[in-house]
Amino acid sequence: MRGRMANFKGHALPGSFFLLFGLWWSIKYPLRQIRRRRVRQHGDREKHKHSVLFNRIDLTEGALKIFFAFVGIMAEQFVPDGPHAHLYHEDGWVKLMNWQHSTMYLFFGISGIADVLTVSSRRVPVGLDSLFMSLALFVEGFLFYFHVHNREPLDQHIHSLLLFAVFSGSATTLMEVFKRDHAVLEFLRCTLAILQGTWFYQIGFVLYPLSGPVWDLMRHDNIMFITMCFCWHLAVALLIVAICYCGVYGCEGRLMGDMEMGLRRSTVSDSSSKKALLQDSDEE
Amino acid sequence: MRGRMANFKGHALPGSFFLLFGLWWSIKYPLRQIRRRRVRQHGDREKHKHSVLFNRIDLTEGALKIFFAFVGIMAEQFVPDGPHAHLYHEDGWVKLMNWQHSTMYLFFGISGIADVLTVSSRRVPVGLDSLFMSLALFVEGFLFYFHVHNREPLDQHIHSLLLFAVFSGSATTLMEVFKRDHAVLEFLRCTLAILQGTWFYQIGFVLYPLSGPVWDLMRHDNIMFITMCFCWHLAVALLIVAICYCGVYGCEGRLMGDMEMGLRRSTVSDSSSKKALLQDSDEE
Amino acid sequence: MRGRMANFKGHALPGSFFLLFGLWWSIKYPLRQIRRRRVRQHGDREKHKHSVLFNRIDLTEGALKIFFAFVGIMAEQFVPDGPHAHLYHEDGWVKLMNWQHSTMYLFFGISGIADVLTVSSRRVPVGLDSLFMSLALFVEGFLFYFHVHNREPLDQHIHSLLLFAVFSGSATTLMEVFKRDHAVLEFLRCTLAILQGTWFYQIGFVLYPLSGPVWDLMRHDNIMFITMCFCWHLAVALLIVAICYCGVYGCEGRLMGDMEMGLRRSTVSDSSSKKALLQDSDEE
Amino acid sequence: MRGRMANFKGHALPGSFFLLFGLWWSIKYPLRQIRRRRVRQHGDREKHKHSVLFNRIDLTEGALKIFFAFVGIMAEQFVPDGPHAHLYHEDGWVKLMNWQHSTMYLFFGISGIADVLTVSSRRVPVGLDSLFMSLALFVEGFLFYFHVHNREPLDQHIHSLLLFAVFSGSATTLMEVFKRDHAVLEFLRCTLAILQGTWFYQIGFVLYPLSGPVWDLMRHDNIMFITMCFCWHLAVALLIVAICYCGVYGCEGRLMGDMEMGLRRSTVSDSSSKKALLQDSDEE
Repeated sequence: MRGRMANFKGHALPGSFFLLFGLWWSIKYPLRQIRRRRVRQHGDREKHKHSVLFNRIDLTEGALKIFFAFVGIMAEQFVPDGPHAHLYHEDGWVKLMNWQHSTMYLFFGISGIADVLTVSSRRVPVGLDSLFMSLALFVEGFLFYFHVHNREPLDQHIHSLLLFAVFSGSATTLMEVFKRDHAVLEFLRCTLAILQGTWFYQIGFVLYPLSGPVWDLMRHDNIMFITMCFCWHLAVALLIVAICYCGVYGCEGRLMGDMEMGLRRSTVSDSSSKKALLQDSDEE
Repeated sequence: MRGRMANFKGHALPGSFFLLFGLWWSIKYPLRQIRRRRVRQHGDREKHKHSVLFNRIDLTEGALKIFFAFVGIMAEQFVPDGPHAHLYHEDGWVKLMNWQHSTMYLFFGISGIADVLTVSSRRVPVGLDSLFMSLALFVEGFLFYFHVHNREPLDQHIHSLLLFAVFSGSATTLMEVFKRDHAVLEFLRCTLAILQGTWFYQIGFVLYPLSGPVWDLMRHDNIMFITMCFCWHLAVALLIVAICYCGVYGCEGRLMGDMEMGLRRSTVSDSSSKKALLQDSDEE
Repeated sequence: MRGRMANFKGHALPGSFFLLFGLWWSIKYPLRQIRRRRVRQHGDREKHKHSVLFNRIDLTEGALKIFFAFVGIMAEQFVPDGPHAHLYHEDGWVKLMNWQHSTMYLFFGISGIADVLTVSSRRVPVGLDSLFMSLALFVEGFLFYFHVHNREPLDQHIHSLLLFAVFSGSATTLMEVFKRDHAVLEFLRCTLAILQGTWFYQIGFVLYPLSGPVWDLMRHDNIMFITMCFCWHLAVALLIVAICYCGVYGCEGRLMGDMEMGLRRSTVSDSSSKKALLQDSDEE
Repeated sequence: MRGRMANFKGHALPGSFFLLFGLWWSIKYPLRQIRRRRVRQHGDREKHKHSVLFNRIDLTEGALKIFFAFVGIMAEQFVPDGPHAHLYHEDGWVKLMNWQHSTMYLFFGISGIADVLTVSSRRVPVGLDSLFMSLALFVEGFLFYFHVHNREPLDQHIHSLLLFAVFSGSATTLMEVFKRDHAVLEFLRCTLAILQGTWFYQIGFVLYPLSGPVWDLMRHDNIMFITMCFCWHLAVALLIVAICYCGVYGCEGRLMGDMEMGLRRSTVSDSSSKKALLQDSDEE
């Protein structure tokens, strides 16, 4: 029998992973966009400058995903009350919950492998990493969907709200297969990752409160509040990502401000059409 | 306890906002299309002429959205029977309905901030304003969806019809992230905004009639009529937007009619392919 | 009280309209594609040759839609047991069914007006006609969806199968807003129009059989058969459209066969890439 | 009355077909991509080299589909307990299950005909083969959806999981109408075909076990396991397709390795933009 503390940690762990990745992405993507813009402005001279660096970053990200997935699977399997890699006893399936969590981690691990392959081999079609990330999120949502049967209303509701974040994330990542390096999609993906992270914590706090009174899982008022609370998490996630983006752009601005001084705001429509033409040639 | 008059106003207020924005958009967008076509015909000469004006208009629109959202939040919080910024008493949540409405206004305010940022900074990726508008509409629909539990059939039905307008609007705006300045999407968005506006009024008239008999909320006939009535609202919204567009084009036609006299209807396929090529370079 | 004959006719009438439009489209679209290909091959020389003819055809189509919609509305309103333009009596709504059908016809009429405007004015954005056609189909499906409450299982099922054809048609037409003149979408739209037409007839034959025994509306076997039967209708519709396309291409082939003798099948990938380039400049 | 063995075979047969096609596709598509890349690098010299071969392969594939579909229909109709082409007796419909399976096979046959026509005629619009394949998968899912009424929970669940694979496959193929030769979509389609194949076998093993104890179709644990098992099948399908792709690329690498030695990994962004430009001209 699992304790309350254990179950809180069980939600905090994936929550922390998503939070970390969301924060990391909201630093990586604006940096990459800055680099891409500089390549456009300065032509081939800048092209190879950070190329190796960004490849190495993507490799590390993939390796980290594989590592975390491996740790997650091991933890789920070999915690004291885990299935210890046994699937079936004569009296039925062993610890299916842990097996399901292992399966979720497995797909994030596969997504990590796909990331590594996409970076390291020229033959792997562009966008395959996004497909695998999207599949990993889909499998997570898919298993959660059939996970929360026969629970109390608030428990079901709070998990089904999680599914909004998970499936939206999966859909956004799937669209990135077709629209590579789309700034708005990247922004949305960062937001949804952070939203998922903070919502995992919220689930932990609501279902297994570390202190204070237990929530009444049957009360309709609580369901209404939690629905609204999800929107607040979304607002906070948007704020966090916006701050990260602004921070990165701000630091870059100090470095490159004098360089771009010549370009004026009044040329916005001109530059946006130029941007589009250049982006076209980047797109698949 | 809220009176019937208060509740009617509670639906008329957001209805008026959507109606105003819908009408305003159905004047702004044809104007913008006229300007864009002239820029195409006359090249760079026209480009900077109205650029500052349109930027200023977009800024004002964003600022108005922020202002209205702020007023809406304040009104919901500090009306005599509002929660006065209290969320929790010892006996449970305080006035969750008002908090939910505040949350909806909050996201429209965030969307206004995104509008202002998109116009005023060159670094903000094109399309971010549409993403935030789409999110604001999604949150509105999301909260309404879990809002109307345990009510009478007609009450539920009339609100779920509202969701059609809200989510269609959200989807249309989301597509505008990828298809910037698409004339048909702009037309559809104007229509859906006006539809939402008039339907808010309709909800007010049905659920809290100012005069005449109260509607029987259980009767199936009424549900059938309301479904059909929603389609009539759609037809009226289409008509209003069409009139606005025709009006703007008509006035412009008088001014520029002599200029474009040379171009004939018979060159339609020629002009449409030219249009497409030009639009391509505008697109992201 | 309506007789069996009347009700059969009530399904045969819209069925005939959809069937006619489906057949007509599956002649018009291959003709238009032939013309477009010749324009590509022979340049501007061919451009103006059939341009006026095709514009006139589209105008006639729009006018026919308006006329049919007007006739449909009048018929629904002024048949002996119709509502005669009365909406409300003291004892409730008058003949809501007829009003709903009138509303459906109204939207097809609006779509006809949009067709006429799109052809006759250069200012109307390309694709608006598709949007209105899509809306008309959506409204048809929308009203049917809330139409078939509280009926026998087979009656409900046979109408909900109709919705598949209606909503697929609506989605296909909506996509044509973004992908103009896409040969596959046009083929699919023709098929779905014919499918809807034949399925209206099927509904008439099943629910109001002109001769032979009445169908048992509660039996599960019948529901299973009807589901399969819908697929057969789809197969037949595909066959009909394919025959029409082949017929048109065949006749054209006899005329132009010598002209295109020089182009060989082996140059397929070459021609397809050229086709794509040319189509790009046609697309919006 | 069908025996257990018969019913197992009834699931193994379509499973084998999907498995075969999935494996075949995961060899064909990487080969085609290799050829396409060589055409890009070496220009027109390579263009006609394999063109005839690939056309012949596509023709054979279409012909095989038609043949298999014909065999399937015949088998379903003329097995000893089949309907022998009788649809109706005085006591009701004859063997509707077999008729439904025949209908499914029919649409795969139609899809085969479309394949043959697309290859052999220049007039057939590009993408029509994908549309018909998508329709065939849709009809399969559509009939299965209404197929599994009134069965035990596990039986329903295991079939509804199949629908995930079927409808995802249909959606992927539909997208290929618009995105021709998209490497990621091809990869996904191969995976989903193999997933469907192995899942058919899984259904056979679970519902009609050849040896060992019968599964308890009411137990919730079993449903949970089967859900997770579906994800494992997906992982295995991804692995199989990845191995096939790697195998094909590996063999090609040995042959062409020296040729491409000059191109370095560091030029990745350069090559990807070139790839995009080239792919653009291939796309419809």
